[in-house]
Amino acid sequence: MANKKITLQENEIPTHWYNILADMPNKPLPPLHPGTKEPIGPEALAPLFPMELIKQEVSTEKWIAIPDEVRELYKIWRPTPLYRAYNLEKVLGTPAKIYYKYEGVSPAGSHKPNTAIPQAYYNKMQGVKRIVTETGAGQWGSALSFACNLLDMKCEVFMVKVSYDGKPYRKMMMNTWGAKVYSSPTTQTEAGRKILAEDPNSPGSLGIAISEAIEIAAQDENTKYALGSVLNHVLLHQTVVGQEAVLQMEKAGDFPDIIIAPFGGGSNFAGLTFPFLRFNFEKGKKIRCIASEPASCPKLTRGVFRYDFGDSVGMTPLLPMFTLGHNFVPQAIHAGGLRYHGAGVIVSQLLKDKLIEARAHHQLETFDAAVLFAKAEGIIPAPEAGHGIATVIQEAKRCKEEGISKTILFNLCGHGHFDMQAYDDYFAGKLTRHDLSDADIQASLAKLTTPTIPQ
Amino acid sequence: MANKKITLQENEIPTHWYNILADMPNKPLPPLHPGTKEPIGPEALAPLFPMELIKQEVSTEKWIAIPDEVRELYKIWRPTPLYRAYNLEKVLGTPAKIYYKYEGVSPAGSHKPNTAIPQAYYNKMQGVKRIVTETGAGQWGSALSFACNLLDMKCEVFMVKVSYDGKPYRKMMMNTWGAKVYSSPTTQTEAGRKILAEDPNSPGSLGIAISEAIEIAAQDENTKYALGSVLNHVLLHQTVVGQEAVLQMEKAGDFPDIIIAPFGGGSNFAGLTFPFLRFNFEKGKKIRCIASEPASCPKLTRGVFRYDFGDSVGMTPLLPMFTLGHNFVPQAIHAGGLRYHGAGVIVSQLLKDKLIEARAHHQLETFDAAVLFAKAEGIIPAPEAGHGIATVIQEAKRCKEEGISKTILFNLCGHGHFDMQAYDDYFAGKLTRHDLSDADIQASLAKLTTPTIPQ
Repeated sequence: MANKKITLQENEIPTHWYNILADMPNKPLPPLHPGTKEPIGPEALAPLFPMELIKQEVSTEKWIAIPDEVRELYKIWRPTPLYRAYNLEKVLGTPAKIYYKYEGVSPAGSHKPNTAIPQAYYNKMQGVKRIVTETGAGQWGSALSFACNLLDMKCEVFMVKVSYDGKPYRKMMMNTWGAKVYSSPTTQTEAGRKILAEDPNSPGSLGIAISEAIEIAAQDENTKYALGSVLNHVLLHQTVVGQEAVLQMEKAGDFPDIIIAPFGGGSNFAGLTFPFLRFNFEKGKKIRCIASEPASCPKLTRGVFRYDFGDSVGMTPLLPMFTLGHNFVPQAIHAGGLRYHGAGVIVSQLLKDKLIEARAHHQLETFDAAVLFAKAEGIIPAPEAGHGIATVIQEAKRCKEEGISKTILFNLCGHGHFDMQAYDDYFAGKLTRHDLSDADIQASLAKLTTPTIPQ
Repeated sequence: MANKKITLQENEIPTHWYNILADMPNKPLPPLHPGTKEPIGPEALAPLFPMELIKQEVSTEKWIAIPDEVRELYKIWRPTPLYRAYNLEKVLGTPAKIYYKYEGVSPAGSHKPNTAIPQAYYNKMQGVKRIVTETGAGQWGSALSFACNLLDMKCEVFMVKVSYDGKPYRKMMMNTWGAKVYSSPTTQTEAGRKILAEDPNSPGSLGIAISEAIEIAAQDENTKYALGSVLNHVLLHQTVVGQEAVLQMEKAGDFPDIIIAPFGGGSNFAGLTFPFLRFNFEKGKKIRCIASEPASCPKLTRGVFRYDFGDSVGMTPLLPMFTLGHNFVPQAIHAGGLRYHGAGVIVSQLLKDKLIEARAHHQLETFDAAVLFAKAEGIIPAPEAGHGIATVIQEAKRCKEEGISKTILFNLCGHGHFDMQAYDDYFAGKLTRHDLSDADIQASLAKLTTPTIPQ
């Protein structure tokens, strides 16, 4: 019988993260100060992040060693399995060979702990006692709670009120790992009080929660802030995923022609694809890497490439990114992890340089795909993962139409155990496509006063 | 760095199930007809189960081959990892070496698919189109839904109303795999209608749900019934867990002195311990195997050994078991999988013969243990698993007091992703011990009119 899973031993966990900045033909433009709009250096980030993470943020070293302590904690769930999706291939009747890397085996249920652990670790090494963050649907908040608990640090999470009320199980999970979780907006920050004064019933937003977390972190030198995607060091940490997958594909005696991953801020996509893009840079391979984003939040396929803020309030440095505008409010799709207005700078530069591709799917299509996958392969995907699967199905069907066999690899970034309500709504016919008009996008972009970038 | 996980390759999935009946010094007494109270043969089970499962139920062959198709489906999540609990050891300050087998990596989140897959398979081979079952907390119902979906069979689940209403995510999971789930009692069976006529607001019970499922199965020759624990063939299928663990302990260069597993009907406990008990039978080893049960449902530690029914209504054959009486209604602890009045016949005989041990824990103790484990090791256990962990902690502390190092192995049978409300209640101080008085037990046992067994 053929192998369904390709598993690795613990000593095959990567020893280094791969830094794609070293290999990119065009490096990203520098971040700008939000006020002066002048380029800023790494020191500007020191109030929010520990020095080791800031160094990683700007490093152009190709390989960055993973500390032994981090590798030791990775062993709780890594290496993760790579699956050959025989049943999905059969259901689709495709000549394509489909593989997926399954990150849902982590105790928090997604790929997010890959960066939560090193972020907590570097903070601890610098003597930081407390980490604050924001979370939307709760994947990142749970991952950081999990990591801080293992490293015996305090963790506080500003959870968007609408998720806090609607997805209580994620909150309870964070509490079990000892984190404090607040329903944002709160009365404990200026930002929160201001919002509540204007609207006591504010449902909150990721932008507000980020502002609250940053405000708390900036007040106390023993407290730092952590972000779950977008930034270079976050993408860097996720490359353990793709490096394991390279090894596993080699063991399978195969190699991907197409790699697909969901896209929110970029860490999910970067984690799987960057270690393969290395083969494009180094060896002239022509692997196609496709980022799958929601049609309701299509920064890669319908946004503009210009400087923009990372948060909605405008507190962060200006970053050169594909964006829908920092005031863009995505519709309430169930894939909360993909509801972000902009793309990380590395991925944005790669897309601008046409070294990667992007594709958008509306919500119903992603749940059609997720349910098809769950029935074929047995694992219930997170709604975010459904976006990647929708692209996989398109590519597999194209192989069928064209009668060619491609090898497709995708990132099954998490399970859907905390998203069963979304599946229930899908079966009850309550989900909508959440299409987005050109007028809505133009209206959001028209508000931007941030620096443009010559195209 | 030492290995935290001991993993196996797919070709190391066991090729045979281990049948402990072959090695037991005293075989269990035969089942009796519920009416005539005369011993019955396997043919009496034919309306409910396919012949291959009935053969397994009574087989005394030591090794029973696992069909290739079943091993192929096991590959979706098997082999499961064995962990060394370094962090738990450190937190407890114990000289004991603690290992755990983690069955929560299955798509349904527990060990239950180990038997759901072969049960669905043997039914399908016999031409059965539909399988009906009951479920309490939902672990078994999800596992059978998962299995039937993979084998393209219809699955219908009678879910105890109080769980149907209180644990909707498990129901949604079953729906996602295509199963129909009913809130039991229903109006579609005699049994259900009778209950509803007496009490239209009945919260349901496992006993009622079993009666409903059996009634449906008995009516239609294309429909069979399936049970998630208690029966010999169910325990048999779970021995894949312990056989993998034997191999993994060998790879770790270690061997258990004490093995611990939660106890509901016996399949969880049997799965891990039987393949090790084989070493006691064959090689005179003296491994201690401890079944951990709830103090609110203490059939092993405070029940009697006599014939009793498997359901509350009295439709099933009479089985020689440790029981609290088939009318015993366990209190509403969160470990719904352990709320069963009786123990499977094999485990009962082993306990009677003092070849295994049992220990009871009250609910608060099990959540203290589960939270301690979650914080130390990172994985949030199912409430059922908390019972085993409570015993593990006792044994590890004893090692510390006595200054001796024992090797302890336990079954982390599932994750707690669908039980976060229980954790929330625990942290909010809402959980109670659920102690049980002698008078309550005596009152239940006094109602028994089933045949006694000479002690």
